[in-house]
Amino acid sequence: QTFSIAVIGGDGIGPEVIAEARRALNAALAHEDTTLQYTDYELGTSHWLKTGETLHEETLESLRAHDAILFGAVGADPQDKRIPSGVIERDLLLKLRFELDHYINLRPTRTYPGVPTPLAAAEDFDFVVVREGTEGPYVGNGGTLRRGSEHEIATEVSVNTAHGVRRVVADAFRRAASRRGRLTLVHKHNVLTHAGNLWRRAVEEHAAQYPQVSWDYMHVDAATIHMVADPQRFDVIVTDNLFGDILTDLAGAVSGGIGQAPSASINGEGTAPSMFEPVHGSAPDIAGQGIADPTAAVLCAGLMLDHLGLDQAAARIERAVHTQLSQWAEQDTGQGLSTTERGEAYVSRIKAL
Amino acid sequence: QTFSIAVIGGDGIGPEVIAEARRALNAALAHEDTTLQYTDYELGTSHWLKTGETLHEETLESLRAHDAILFGAVGADPQDKRIPSGVIERDLLLKLRFELDHYINLRPTRTYPGVPTPLAAAEDFDFVVVREGTEGPYVGNGGTLRRGSEHEIATEVSVNTAHGVRRVVADAFRRAASRRGRLTLVHKHNVLTHAGNLWRRAVEEHAAQYPQVSWDYMHVDAATIHMVADPQRFDVIVTDNLFGDILTDLAGAVSGGIGQAPSASINGEGTAPSMFEPVHGSAPDIAGQGIADPTAAVLCAGLMLDHLGLDQAAARIERAVHTQLSQWAEQDTGQGLSTTERGEAYVSRIKAL
Ligand SMILES: CC(C)[C@H](C(=O)O)[C@@H](O)C(=O)O
Ligand SMILES: CC(C)[C@H](C(=O)O)[C@@H](O)C(=O)O
Repeated sequence: QTFSIAVIGGDGIGPEVIAEARRALNAALAHEDTTLQYTDYELGTSHWLKTGETLHEETLESLRAHDAILFGAVGADPQDKRIPSGVIERDLLLKLRFELDHYINLRPTRTYPGVPTPLAAAEDFDFVVVREGTEGPYVGNGGTLRRGSEHEIATEVSVNTAHGVRRVVADAFRRAASRRGRLTLVHKHNVLTHAGNLWRRAVEEHAAQYPQVSWDYMHVDAATIHMVADPQRFDVIVTDNLFGDILTDLAGAVSGGIGQAPSASINGEGTAPSMFEPVHGSAPDIAGQGIADPTAAVLCAGLMLDHLGLDQAAARIERAVHTQLSQWAEQDTGQGLSTTERGEAYVSRIKAL
Repeated sequence: QTFSIAVIGGDGIGPEVIAEARRALNAALAHEDTTLQYTDYELGTSHWLKTGETLHEETLESLRAHDAILFGAVGADPQDKRIPSGVIERDLLLKLRFELDHYINLRPTRTYPGVPTPLAAAEDFDFVVVREGTEGPYVGNGGTLRRGSEHEIATEVSVNTAHGVRRVVADAFRRAASRRGRLTLVHKHNVLTHAGNLWRRAVEEHAAQYPQVSWDYMHVDAATIHMVADPQRFDVIVTDNLFGDILTDLAGAVSGGIGQAPSASINGEGTAPSMFEPVHGSAPDIAGQGIADPTAAVLCAGLMLDHLGLDQAAARIERAVHTQLSQWAEQDTGQGLSTTERGEAYVSRIKAL
């Protein structure tokens, strides 16, 4: 069995952490009758500066032909004035999510026993945010009128459709049913009454089909409080594109570090390849030093294997990371390791499983 | 000197905490030649259920005639199906903010020495969020098409004007200049490119007038990480209506409790009364039990005095709360106190100053 994987290392620490993810993948599949065939794509801000390409139509079509996409990180140094804000985000990263219909943006968050978190009264927790990925305020339907004048108006339109909301809500209910049976809808329906109402009805409608799932509703502002005060209350969170973006960075922070937060941008119908990328960015401040934490990228590799139906190999990666993180924490030996030292530790663990 | 104060206790714990705020106000002004004349307004969900009024035009005009508004909290029990979502929020609370042009939604956040926070490595911090109050996704420019069908579309429009953004940015720079000279703009300009660009230019333009203020930019998702990892880095944050809503609940949580977070909705030109309200809600689950924490309401009273130019009385309230919170924390005697016990403790402190 062969799967073709498109690899977009991207900018900054992206290629560094993706290299370790590939090592972990190869180790996890060493004794299986499955081969991953990698094709590297140079895309991102450096590539754009060199060639002017953000994402050509042909590149997109070529990416479509793969079984999955492994994605590092893209984004320029904020100090670099040659790159207009939003170009790479909108025309590469978001374009991929929108064109490949990645409507399930899956962001699992968990603590690892022994690994310190910034919370004083830390109980372990394990939840997953199902963030909508193709609608909401991310659609790019904004405009500017009378730019630069004192009468300037800038708008941003959040677009939410029954089609888009129902399918991601259905996915979240399925996940909740196969986990601890608790679903939380996060929105702000007391202010964003139209979008909020659509989301709420979608959840109410699906709830009838899932008697084993209990659900509740939380305003996004209140959700940030619970994320800090009692994150263990969450099992599955379903929310819109923007709220999901905000909440998952916060979730990464309270779980002990955004460096360990993976994500999957999933096309639920399988009509285009899904994409696996760390929640963290390209971190230009530490790029090239070999000190980036590859954990999130390695966990992304696990999510990708799981998505390809290779659950045993996926479980090996997940278990290896889990055990290794706990050991570093217990023996206090995880400080100051290089990217490759971490990657090699994961590989040894995987091989030993 | 007499000031006329409109008091809107509202729902749930609102009237309970406002009663303590009034006691604190009277104590703080006891030896000054200043009188506050209170007029109570019954408004909120209970009032709406009884009378059908959210906010009549005449009530609004009558409120306008006051020097300031002291506001408790409004909002129904989420289980109460008689109240459609958003009615009281949009037609009372947000209507007040919009009609009275409360463009500066000021939310100071600080720790109190000794008072525990949920963060393990807690340094003390003290920052203020200047949240825009009359624009952004809060304008209520949403719509629904083909409601209930599989082709339903719900939109929400974020409206941002040069007028609206520049005036709140100017206020934030003024505050930063009189504090530690650091301003952080929080937005999401890599995705919300039109609105984000307007905000960014507004900050860049004002920065030239404030060489003593250094400013930086942070995406809202990254800001939640810093709020948890190093909140002491913030001095003044300026941000849009929705991001400000989210960040200030999070700020309340990391500072040791939303029960201590006051806010001021300020009309910067003084063409209408400003309004002072706790960040917390009406907490129907604990209403009527006399156990609500009145601290945020008492701090609101302080913000109100400050706004009326009564800085000495304002400082007395601030100092009393500060000292009393630290004492409760040090002697571990703050648990299980009733609303009035807390209120009385603040009053004694104020009298002793
Ligand atoms: C880079 C940016 C466009 C992106 C987002 O907002 O979705 C990132 O923050 C993320 O969470 O994947
Ligand atoms: C009740 C709600 C409309 C309000 C808001 O979103 O502004 C509240 O959360 C706040 O922070 O004052």
